[in-house]
Amino acid sequence: MRKPMKQMSFDEQLEYLKKGAVEIIQLEELRERLHQSIKSKKPLKIKVGFDPTAPDIHLGHTVILRKMKHFQDLGHDVIFLIGDFTGLIGDPSGRSKIRKPLTRKEIQKNAETYKEQFCKILDPEKTIVDFNSRWLGELGSEGFIKLASRYTVARILERDDFTNRIAANQPIAVHEILYPLAQAYDSVFLKCDVEMGGTDQKFNLLVGRDIQREYGLPPQIVLTMPLLEGTDGVEKMSKSLNNYISIQEPPGEIFGKIMSITDALMWRYYELLTDSSLQEIEKMKQQVDTGAVNPRDVKMRLAKMIITDFHDRKAAEEAEEEFKRVFSKGELPEEMQEKRLKCQPEPQWLPKLLVTLNLASSNSQARRLIEQGGVYLNGERIEDTNFELDLTKPEEIIIKVGKRKFCRLIIEQ
Amino acid sequence: MRKPMKQMSFDEQLEYLKKGAVEIIQLEELRERLHQSIKSKKPLKIKVGFDPTAPDIHLGHTVILRKMKHFQDLGHDVIFLIGDFTGLIGDPSGRSKIRKPLTRKEIQKNAETYKEQFCKILDPEKTIVDFNSRWLGELGSEGFIKLASRYTVARILERDDFTNRIAANQPIAVHEILYPLAQAYDSVFLKCDVEMGGTDQKFNLLVGRDIQREYGLPPQIVLTMPLLEGTDGVEKMSKSLNNYISIQEPPGEIFGKIMSITDALMWRYYELLTDSSLQEIEKMKQQVDTGAVNPRDVKMRLAKMIITDFHDRKAAEEAEEEFKRVFSKGELPEEMQEKRLKCQPEPQWLPKLLVTLNLASSNSQARRLIEQGGVYLNGERIEDTNFELDLTKPEEIIIKVGKRKFCRLIIEQ
Repeated sequence: MRKPMKQMSFDEQLEYLKKGAVEIIQLEELRERLHQSIKSKKPLKIKVGFDPTAPDIHLGHTVILRKMKHFQDLGHDVIFLIGDFTGLIGDPSGRSKIRKPLTRKEIQKNAETYKEQFCKILDPEKTIVDFNSRWLGELGSEGFIKLASRYTVARILERDDFTNRIAANQPIAVHEILYPLAQAYDSVFLKCDVEMGGTDQKFNLLVGRDIQREYGLPPQIVLTMPLLEGTDGVEKMSKSLNNYISIQEPPGEIFGKIMSITDALMWRYYELLTDSSLQEIEKMKQQVDTGAVNPRDVKMRLAKMIITDFHDRKAAEEAEEEFKRVFSKGELPEEMQEKRLKCQPEPQWLPKLLVTLNLASSNSQARRLIEQGGVYLNGERIEDTNFELDLTKPEEIIIKVGKRKFCRLIIEQ
Repeated sequence: MRKPMKQMSFDEQLEYLKKGAVEIIQLEELRERLHQSIKSKKPLKIKVGFDPTAPDIHLGHTVILRKMKHFQDLGHDVIFLIGDFTGLIGDPSGRSKIRKPLTRKEIQKNAETYKEQFCKILDPEKTIVDFNSRWLGELGSEGFIKLASRYTVARILERDDFTNRIAANQPIAVHEILYPLAQAYDSVFLKCDVEMGGTDQKFNLLVGRDIQREYGLPPQIVLTMPLLEGTDGVEKMSKSLNNYISIQEPPGEIFGKIMSITDALMWRYYELLTDSSLQEIEKMKQQVDTGAVNPRDVKMRLAKMIITDFHDRKAAEEAEEEFKRVFSKGELPEEMQEKRLKCQPEPQWLPKLLVTLNLASSNSQARRLIEQGGVYLNGERIEDTNFELDLTKPEEIIIKVGKRKFCRLIIEQ
């Protein structure tokens, strides 16, 4: 077993691993397995499955990566498992043009991209990247039949999305009910101690437990992590909802987006997107509650921590400086108003847009505000009264008008 | 295409193939495919699947073999397909000790036994024996997933026995829903024109049609044959119900059993167990109805035809002679009374048994009847008044007492 990076007592270790988890099935088993691991100096095997399609990781995805890191911090083996077996098949019915089979080369390339991105959080030296085609291909017709004999149709169909599709009279193809079994077999082959995933993966992870038992293995512990709320604080973070922060965004953009979230969401992000312990977070909360600390400063600290993860400390500090320069001290509102607009085919004249958004009373007042240097888009001062804004693509723009008026403009598809 | 053994007009051919079938899906397609085959001189491919377990063929099984013969008579290719893929797997859940996997050697041995038996009806030179492990093994994990993607769970679960099990809350293992797909894939690989089976196989045969379409092949024609009634004329012929005639039974026993069936069942047996055309059968029926012919003679003819199939003409004639000798002319009842007894741990004293069966009024009358040579068991005269009958195993015994009293004694488990 590698020397853990963090020196913690047993209880601290358990607390560290539990942090942010929605469910641990079963906690008692995790405690026991952790004990054994420490005693025998044999690291635990932690598996997390990833799609073989080209990744573009946003903060939502990093929740699970961070939990993997926590296990890594304590000296355990994490397996970044790329589910390429299904990817190599594509849409086997051949009906969808989108799910074309991927070539080995494409999968390898996607794996590289994953690695570039996950190594911002995980230690690349210590992360085992594996591909399930390695054993699922080998399994063969006979192995698949045997695997399929270990589970009942009824139990598979209990899965929420299957239940819903049955209720809606939507067809379920037979191969779809084989996939949870294939994923479960990954855990058999790898002899996993723990499998993690989002709460939406809970069913599949539990099948792994059952199937491991069927193959005479101790059942893996299932640990589910929440689906991170997007910057709107309501919906799950996703590209299509345009409420996400990609880990590849420039530092200034990440800073601005983090500063725009609510305080409640800020605590959530601390829990799920940083290594701060629950105790540390609780302490900050108390400081804010008693007025000892300005929540804005705690939020800036969060923004810097996140930027440090995906860029570096220097970039984080520069982003903070720039943000402070634009939104000079004391100006920053605790909450911003939020406006939504559909994408526009033509560029929009800024003064008119400010009126539409209720940030100016007339085009001429808007022009005057621009001339006076009081209008910022994403922290950048606009000085041209003829400025036209490109709203053809979904994005998020923070608009500042004068000293106190802020607006988060969300452009939607 | 081989030269057909029978020279028939197109309509006669179709009539010959239809004879006895419960359903043909679709008849129009069979007509068309038959036309094409004759025109192109390319024989049709007819598939029938058989269990890889050791066979002991009774008349019930010969119904489908005879239908295969009919196709063979017209020059088509029949494939005797042994479903060894599943046999090699056994009970994949490992829970049943009965369904142990078979070895290749065992399967080969069972195939030989099948051949010995089916060649009484089919032309062994013209019968293609094949094994589905040949292609189902090759299919691999990927092929199986692709196959599974071509069908929906809902449609598979519509199968009667699945529906019943769901209603009864009995579990269905996932591999069980893969088997109909595997069987359907046999038809894809073999490019079958026709698949036949008992009416209980209808669902599986229809899946073959669908899956062939999915793989871009013209769908096979499905032909179902009835499940033959046993000698009791009520239940399906089966070993466990002890109402069967094995093709390995001695000629005398087959003769006796056939003579014991009702007239109605006799016509059914003519239809399903002989090559007589419906016209020929109809003619005999009329002759019996008008009293021109004694039904007993028609039944004896049936018995001889069946014995000729499984032994030879000479054996059939000897069996007839022996039967006539014992049941001298005019004695044979149209119907026999039937009695059922459970197996007895101890041998039973014959006179007492005759009283129990109401064939004698007292033990002393029964003894007298035996002494006078008036008691026969299965056509064999019993002369010893101390005779004890072994009733430890299920069997059927025809008892004749005096000139007119007959009884079919069925010993049940």
